[in-house]
Amino acid sequence: MRAAIFRNGEIVVDRMPEPKPGAGQVLVKTLACGICGSDLHARQHAHRMVEMAKKVGRKPMDLSRDVVFGHEFCCEIVDYGPGTERKLKRGARVCSLPALLTPQGIEGIGYSNDNIGGYAEAMLLSEALLLEVPNGLAPERAALTEPLAVGVHAVAKANIRGGEVPLVIGCGPVGLAVIAALKIRGLHPIVAADYSPARRALAAKLGADIVVDPKASQPYATWAEYAQMSDAEKAARPPLQAMLPALKPALIFECVGVPGLLQQVFEGAPRDARIVVVGVCMETDRSEPMLGIMKELNVQYVLGYTPDEFASSLRLIAEGQVDAAAMVTAEVGIDGVARAFADLANPEAHTKIIVQPWR
Amino acid sequence: MRAAIFRNGEIVVDRMPEPKPGAGQVLVKTLACGICGSDLHARQHAHRMVEMAKKVGRKPMDLSRDVVFGHEFCCEIVDYGPGTERKLKRGARVCSLPALLTPQGIEGIGYSNDNIGGYAEAMLLSEALLLEVPNGLAPERAALTEPLAVGVHAVAKANIRGGEVPLVIGCGPVGLAVIAALKIRGLHPIVAADYSPARRALAAKLGADIVVDPKASQPYATWAEYAQMSDAEKAARPPLQAMLPALKPALIFECVGVPGLLQQVFEGAPRDARIVVVGVCMETDRSEPMLGIMKELNVQYVLGYTPDEFASSLRLIAEGQVDAAAMVTAEVGIDGVARAFADLANPEAHTKIIVQPWR
Repeated sequence: MRAAIFRNGEIVVDRMPEPKPGAGQVLVKTLACGICGSDLHARQHAHRMVEMAKKVGRKPMDLSRDVVFGHEFCCEIVDYGPGTERKLKRGARVCSLPALLTPQGIEGIGYSNDNIGGYAEAMLLSEALLLEVPNGLAPERAALTEPLAVGVHAVAKANIRGGEVPLVIGCGPVGLAVIAALKIRGLHPIVAADYSPARRALAAKLGADIVVDPKASQPYATWAEYAQMSDAEKAARPPLQAMLPALKPALIFECVGVPGLLQQVFEGAPRDARIVVVGVCMETDRSEPMLGIMKELNVQYVLGYTPDEFASSLRLIAEGQVDAAAMVTAEVGIDGVARAFADLANPEAHTKIIVQPWR
Repeated sequence: MRAAIFRNGEIVVDRMPEPKPGAGQVLVKTLACGICGSDLHARQHAHRMVEMAKKVGRKPMDLSRDVVFGHEFCCEIVDYGPGTERKLKRGARVCSLPALLTPQGIEGIGYSNDNIGGYAEAMLLSEALLLEVPNGLAPERAALTEPLAVGVHAVAKANIRGGEVPLVIGCGPVGLAVIAALKIRGLHPIVAADYSPARRALAAKLGADIVVDPKASQPYATWAEYAQMSDAEKAARPPLQAMLPALKPALIFECVGVPGLLQQVFEGAPRDARIVVVGVCMETDRSEPMLGIMKELNVQYVLGYTPDEFASSLRLIAEGQVDAAAMVTAEVGIDGVARAFADLANPEAHTKIIVQPWR
């Protein structure tokens, strides 16, 4: 079968053997798979990713061997391995969170030498993790379940009590997913900031009430304009708190993931802000803890999603509650993956590119 | 009156005018005042503290002018200013959180050119913030209200749900106050780590159930030994979680406050740990956000306490629920302050030194 393979730091197209399903596993034809920012990171910072995996006790990639990226997929059932219940028919369309149950335990799909990701014509999934795609939903939309789940999870980990005013820093696919998830939670107004006009337009489409161009105005100042307490909220404060600025609680989602960004958030954030770090910064970062201390900031780092959050994300797309397809800017075949990785560097041109291995 | 004054980067003894109480203010004789780690920091990193105060919009110290440090005090009422209710008699012993209500708003005591701290014979307090010291409690004990309140606040901000196993990194006055506050919350076992045998002994005295010498064994490994889930807790986990290590939730208090420490915590912490940063690191720090992300860590920076936490800390000491006096290793007069600052560098020799300005 054909695949776009990560080999010697580059994405190359080559043939590889079709995998064989083991016990409890299913062979699937890959219909659609989104390219994730983490894939771009992994290509550029593969050694760093290996080092980090080792530090947290996960199985690292062996960079001298092939890896097929791709963890945002929608597939079609082709064949069942031994010991499977086979409740879904061959030809059924399925999603799964990118994990494979193997005799060695649970392993990731997409950054693994052993488990082929979605930039290939076929892959293996675990029957126990399959979610049938509701009838009629296009694979290219169903493949957006995974990135949406990232936003749903980030918002769930934000531990919303009600009354917070959210600020989303960065409107790439992660920021957009956070905005969509915030809209569903009914938290308003949603303030979102990005330098790119195209991404600000998408942010508004997915649910941001106020979009800020950081070149034109300071995102935290704009946030503060929309976060003023009502007179009743002001009156309800204890005496010493009444001396502080009368702002609603801040909930800041860092969806950029580059060094220096968290320090910028520390500088801009108001007192008592809760910061959810959704952007994945792979390098060592610097920040001033004193700013965190003097403002009593809370920083919640997040990754991934729970199986329930993943399943509910698929439902949200299928029911039309989230227009995730709005963020898709191109569809390419296996031969277009390397070029797509390069193209995604320009936020005006692209947001989410979907790989269709059989295109 | 006499005072130990911070002048040109050093602590010097000199005379200065006795302050005059303004509206709502009280002139008090300072009976006892603890030396805080932040005072040592402030002497060494005064410019940094000024820079930070500016960044968060607080009034910075003018380092070309005198400052009298000291914000952990117990005093005796001498005279009332205009517009005061005078409910407490002259001679009554009082504590107050280190803040002064002035016509310009609320200002800090202890790192201010205008508001004299506790290393002087007299100071001003605000009548509205006075707490009468319960009858018979020695001023040297009442002065420990402020450092205990730091621990009480840190534990309150930890948002304890029950079932967490705490790990306290660093058993200086801040770590000891956290241990005392954890003991009152009934969270056990309390694991605490410090390189100093004297401080480990104090940690045990104040409530730590297990004390670790990081030279002899890894604090996080020791923590894990005591944080194993019960069989019932193991059985109650959802299937995918059952594949993770069967550890109770981790609650880590960082009570050291030097660069690199947070990164060490990031490396040692188990998945989903909540980290409360109580140690005050004044320098720029480096850490690897990927570790935070892959473990979904939560970092809560804390500072100070609420008026209620401060008042309850005084009660806890007065009722004998916390043996805060155990951490006092010396008492000095105004002439002994500079030497005490130097002596506090040795954790074997000293933990908390109390200044008695009238000694």
